[in-house]
This record gives sequence, structure tokens and C-alpha cells, in this order.
Amino acid sequence: MAEIILSINAGSSSVKISVYRAPDGSNANTDPIQLAEASVEGLTAPPAKLKYSRGDYSIKGQELDNISSQEDAFRTILTHLTQDSGLPELTNLSDIHYTCHRVVHGGDYPSSQVIDAATYHHIEELSDLAPLHNAPALSIVRASSDLLPNATNIAYFDSAFHTSMPAHIRTYPIDPTIARKNKLRKYGFHGLSYSFITQAVASHLGKPPSELNVIALHLGSGASACCIKRGKSLDTSMGLTPLAGLPGATRSGSIDPSLMFHFTHDAGKPSRAATAHMHITQAEEILNKKSGWKSLTGTTDFGAISKGEREVDELAFDMFVDRVLNYVAPYFVKLGGEVDALVFAGGIGERGARLRGAVVEGVKCLGFELDKGKNERPGDDVVTDISAEGAKFKALIVKTDEQLQMARSVLLDRDRLEKK
Amino acid sequence: MAEIILSINAGSSSVKISVYRAPDGSNANTDPIQLAEASVEGLTAPPAKLKYSRGDYSIKGQELDNISSQEDAFRTILTHLTQDSGLPELTNLSDIHYTCHRVVHGGDYPSSQVIDAATYHHIEELSDLAPLHNAPALSIVRASSDLLPNATNIAYFDSAFHTSMPAHIRTYPIDPTIARKNKLRKYGFHGLSYSFITQAVASHLGKPPSELNVIALHLGSGASACCIKRGKSLDTSMGLTPLAGLPGATRSGSIDPSLMFHFTHDAGKPSRAATAHMHITQAEEILNKKSGWKSLTGTTDFGAISKGEREVDELAFDMFVDRVLNYVAPYFVKLGGEVDALVFAGGIGERGARLRGAVVEGVKCLGFELDKGKNERPGDDVVTDISAEGAKFKALIVKTDEQLQMARSVLLDRDRLEKK
Repeated sequence: MAEIILSINAGSSSVKISVYRAPDGSNANTDPIQLAEASVEGLTAPPAKLKYSRGDYSIKGQELDNISSQEDAFRTILTHLTQDSGLPELTNLSDIHYTCHRVVHGGDYPSSQVIDAATYHHIEELSDLAPLHNAPALSIVRASSDLLPNATNIAYFDSAFHTSMPAHIRTYPIDPTIARKNKLRKYGFHGLSYSFITQAVASHLGKPPSELNVIALHLGSGASACCIKRGKSLDTSMGLTPLAGLPGATRSGSIDPSLMFHFTHDAGKPSRAATAHMHITQAEEILNKKSGWKSLTGTTDFGAISKGEREVDELAFDMFVDRVLNYVAPYFVKLGGEVDALVFAGGIGERGARLRGAVVEGVKCLGFELDKGKNERPGDDVVTDISAEGAKFKALIVKTDEQLQMARSVLLDRDRLEKK
Repeated sequence: MAEIILSINAGSSSVKISVYRAPDGSNANTDPIQLAEASVEGLTAPPAKLKYSRGDYSIKGQELDNISSQEDAFRTILTHLTQDSGLPELTNLSDIHYTCHRVVHGGDYPSSQVIDAATYHHIEELSDLAPLHNAPALSIVRASSDLLPNATNIAYFDSAFHTSMPAHIRTYPIDPTIARKNKLRKYGFHGLSYSFITQAVASHLGKPPSELNVIALHLGSGASACCIKRGKSLDTSMGLTPLAGLPGATRSGSIDPSLMFHFTHDAGKPSRAATAHMHITQAEEILNKKSGWKSLTGTTDFGAISKGEREVDELAFDMFVDRVLNYVAPYFVKLGGEVDALVFAGGIGERGARLRGAVVEGVKCLGFELDKGKNERPGDDVVTDISAEGAKFKALIVKTDEQLQMARSVLLDRDRLEKK
């Protein structure tokens, strides 16, 4: 029987699950075959809505009652999948062999981990560094252990791609004893996406990943940049937590570290969102949830902002371009100018033609240039070259796919996983 | 009688005063003439020591008893100056016409301010944003008003040079209502130094400042970078306070804004150094005073670190080079690659040959290259060109002089000042 893999991507207000089956035969280079994709969105803005697609069949946004947690959403999707008669490979929860959980913060874990009691406990401990970001995945990991009798649960960490960063880049200039004790260092995130990008660009250019130098931008409601040297992360914009670096929809990105103490006298006090399981200060709540371009413009929709209809839209747009350039340029010099491609990925990276235009215009003096037509109508390929003919360096759009990247890893790791 | 100008530069553990007289005649382009220079250092590591130089005469480090505050140091220097028989221009405190006070944080003040009761009050208010940095100057301003019957007190702000930064660079992506109310924006500092650098490089290259594009690095125990476009600040690394940006001797520079809440649960509580006049949290105390390369290596002496004798020295050195490149590269692209010079200034900028070598090597791919001999033995000029012959862009060392820059401004502003 076909082995069924669920790739689960839980965010603060949504749960997305891609369903794959392992390909026939044992060729490790063959991709898993996607059977269906389901998501529940709007957990924090009820009613939540179910989206579903399987081949040509799709549900665009069915309203759901009484669904407000990630676990609710997970159960709903499982029920939907097992009851879909068009999905005969998955009629019973016992048909699921692997569940891949995207976990944002994996501390020093350099690779994925099969989740048992000990690893779950360890992941829960290190989640104190990024409780807002890890909590959704952890609640689904718990539900998954309860509900799926035959599944191996595997955690894929967004931080794992960055364990290659050298000490002088990952270390903060702070008291090293406390840094060691409290695990305070730069970790970096969006690693599943950067793994996917590395593989996709290497394949597109016909180069081994170990020879590939890329400046990668994963730009979405959470945004980051990564300097990929010889296929490995040399530097990235996020830090101890996803808060550092670029601004996001509701996230400030890097600001003066003393700012919060002048923003509110209660910066260090527990946030109202804090629970026994989630220690979070008001500062972290404000900087992660109540800042970013939404705080300036009133909307999280960067597409609307990019239209520049109001002065605040132009301010937010120009600010984002400026902050992105603050990473693209140093990554260019860290690669010694030997750059195979500047990559745009993530929702804004894929859809933001104006943003891509402004960023590339900003690094024109380095030898980047876009083909305007290609930039505005990039098509549907996984990798699209949008560079102008004759540009010294390539600019690419990559349709990154974190769920597929996890499912691929399952296939590669199957032998190791079975031995557990 | 010659008009005597004192330029006062008060830091957390030292007070430096340069004594000038206005040149004869009314040519505004003539520099003030330096008569003497005095400093008291080691206020936080007693015994404090007096250094003095006047022409060929000098005192190298005379130990002082019972001198522990900036005001003590100021009084000691005034006594020393009036009693020095080799300084006949200044025999009485009433001989002093102008005192220039370097004030770090000037909020939105775009230029120097004659200090009267109203401006003093305003400066004191905005000092809440950077109490650690403004307190030394303010205590001397108070003493100066008491002690000097004929002097006009003028505040020169390190932030004033940066009021030209555009909105999308100076704005933080945080709640704009609170930002406006609490004056939370990027200000930038080291502006007296950047003014001096702009003027010195323009003169060296025979260009008007309004056509000058410079990437300037003021690297000392406090370090910053500035992107100077057409003679004006376009961007700089420091932020709301001098904490943001590059690390310093005891300062972390930019880190994940959530880090402090994982460093100590008391991040937001008042520091033991806080007083009724100085509101400062433990986080600000730790990040300004107990971090930086001293926290990693045990020394504030970057010269010793640059010798790289221990692994931690190499770590701190490589980290500093990396963080400097994180500003040089984006400033290059913000100038569209039209850069008149990369400038090294400040104690480390002037004396750190290895640091300059590593930074320029880091941007070699952009077209910078050093002449090794000139870099290692730069000589004593105000501006020294250390670029390799044939390098596409110039690299310069500038012996910056904040005190002279203030005294120059007095001469330029004399008419305006007299009318007050």
C-alpha cells in the first residue's frame, strides 16, 4: 500500500496540510506525489474557513462553526480527508505513515527529529525562546500523537538550515556565560524555504548545490533574507527569534534594542496572551503582533500597500525596500560578488512585481537588472528567470514549497526513520 | 581682547576640553586657533588623571585626588587653565566667551542651541531618551552657568547632522501614535564627527560638500557608520539611542529586540544606576555598559584584540569586521555606487590598520583596495589617502576633531549668537 505523508504547516491563525504519497520504486530522487491540499484559515478572525483542492476538485472557502484552535483545525482537516471519496488512499487515520511538522525554532538541532517523549520535551523547552512561533506546531504534535495510530511524527525545524553559520556571525556581543546558559545566539528561520530554494535554483542552473551562491529573500507576512554560500547558510536576517531583521506584516524587525523601554514602562511584564505554557512579555507581544506595516498602514496586505494610494502606503513600501537592501548588499559582498542569483520567494516575493522592481533597481549598480515584461508576468514555473538580457547577475522568482520540502526529506530519511 | 572658546566633550568617564581663541580679522573661513588641550580621564576608575598640552609643554597623566564626577573634572581643568602662566589669554574665568558643549542626544533640534533656562529644560526632557549619554554634558552645562560669568553656553548635538534622513529611513515600523508621543524614531549620533569628516574630505578632494558622497565609519569605543549623500546624512547605524547599530567596547549594538527578555526577567526594571534624574532600565544598563567586545574578551582595548592572541580576540575582531560590512555595503548601493571615499575615523579607525585592512578586503569586489604600506604607516595629516594606486574608489583616514568642529561653528554663528 502507498505510504501516506502529511506535511503540516501551522501558523498563528491557520493550519495547512499537504497530502502526499511516496512514489513507487525506491529512487530517492523522485519527488513525493501530492494528492491533496487542505487548509483552515482565519482561526483568529472567525468564522474559520476550509480550503481544499484535489486535482481539479476544489473548495474555495467553506465556513466552519466552532473552530478556533489549531487542534480544532487539524481534526477538521483529518475528518475531511478521510471522508473525501476522491481520496481512496486515505480512508482511515491508520493509513497515515508520516506526519511532518514544521517547527519554527529548533534551537541547536541541526536536522529533523522523530518526535518521541524525550524530543517532545526538549522541543517544548527550547520553545521558550520563541513561544509565539512554536506553540501552534506543538499543539498539533500533541493531537497527532493521540489521533494517528500508525504515524511517525517528525519535526522539521526552520532553524536547522542555519546551523552552518560561523561563530562570529551567530554570536551576540553579550555576556557569554549568560548567552550559553540561556541559549542566546542567532539561529535564523525560514530554513525549509531556503532548503527548497537552494535545491530548486541548483537544479535550474544545472549546478551542484555545493557550488551555489545565492542571495535569497523569503518575503511574506514574515520576511527574511539569507546569504547562501556553496549551498549553506552563511548569514540570515532573523536572529534569536523571528523578530530580528526585516519588518513583517505585524512585526517590527530590528529596532534599537532600547526602544521598547521607551515605548511602555511595562515592556518586561507578562503579556495578556501569556499562559502557563507560554511566557511572553508585553514587549514581545507588541513587537511581534502589533507592529510592522499593519501598524503604519492599517492593513497586512502588502499588495494593497504596493499600490501606493496613500502617503502611509508609500512610506511602508519605501521602508520595506530600504530594509531589504540593507541585507541584499552585505550578502553580495560576503559572497565576494560571486552570486549565482538573487531570489525572490514567499507571498510578496512571488506576487510583488513592484517590490521586486524597486529592490533590483536599488542594486543596479552591482550588476542586477530586470526584464520588465518577465517581472510583471512571471508565469507558473517553480523557477522563473526575470533578469534582463545581458544583466551581470540573475534575478529569479522561486515558488517555494515548505510542505514539499518536508515530504522530500521523509523520502530521503526513510531508512533512518524506520530504524527508530 | 581675543575671544576665548572652550570646546567641552564630556563622556561617562572623562572630560576633554580644547581651548581656542578666535582668529584676528573677520574671515569666517579661518579656523579658530588652538591654545591648549586638557583632559581628566578615569573618573570611573580612580585615581583620575590630568593630561594637558600647550604647544611643546605637556603633562602626561598627573594623578588627582577626590575627583570622581564630571563637574569635579571641569572645575579642576578650569583652575589648571587659569593658573597656567603660559596661557596669558585665559587668566580669569571671565575671559571665557563661549563654551561649546557636545550633547549626544538633541532630539529633533536641527542645529546648535544657545542654552538658556528654556532650552536647558527642553534638553533635559529629551535626555530621557538617552540618559546615560546626555547626563555627563548636562552636569557640566549646569556648572558652566554657575562658574563662568561672561560665557555664552551653546549645545552642539550629535544627532543634528542626521535630521536630513528621509522619513522611510528614520521611521520605525511601530505604532505611529506612540512613536509620535514618545518621540521614537531613528536619530543617529556622532554628527559632529561626520560634519568634520564631510568638510575635511570635501577640502581634500577639492569638491564642494554638496557634491560629496562618503561612506564614513566613526569607530571607537562607541562606533557608528554614516551614509553621506551630497554632504548630508542619508542613513546611519545608530538609532533612537546610540545603542543600535555597531557593537562598541561595552555596547551590544543591534541584537534581536526580544533578546533582553530572555537574558533576564528584570529587563524592564530600573537599573541600580538609575536616579531621580536618570531613568534607566536594567536592560539598557546591561546592553550599554556590560556588553560589546569587553564582554567577550575582557578588554575594551581593540588594539589588543586586533593582535588576535586568543581565540576570543579573533571572534571579537571577525565579528566587528562583519558588522561593519553590514553597513558599508548597503551604503554603497544607497549611493548608487557613486562613492567619493570610504572614510575611517575615530580611535580604531585611525589606529586600527588590521581592521581597515579587513574591512577593505571585505569590499574588494566593489572596487576598494588599500596600499598596504600607507595603511600601516599613515602619517599625521588630517586626511590620509590609503588607497592602492588604481583602486576604483578611495579609502581615507580622517583625524576627526569634534572639539574643533564646535569651535568652528561658533565662529560661523557668531553674529547669530551675539544677537541672542
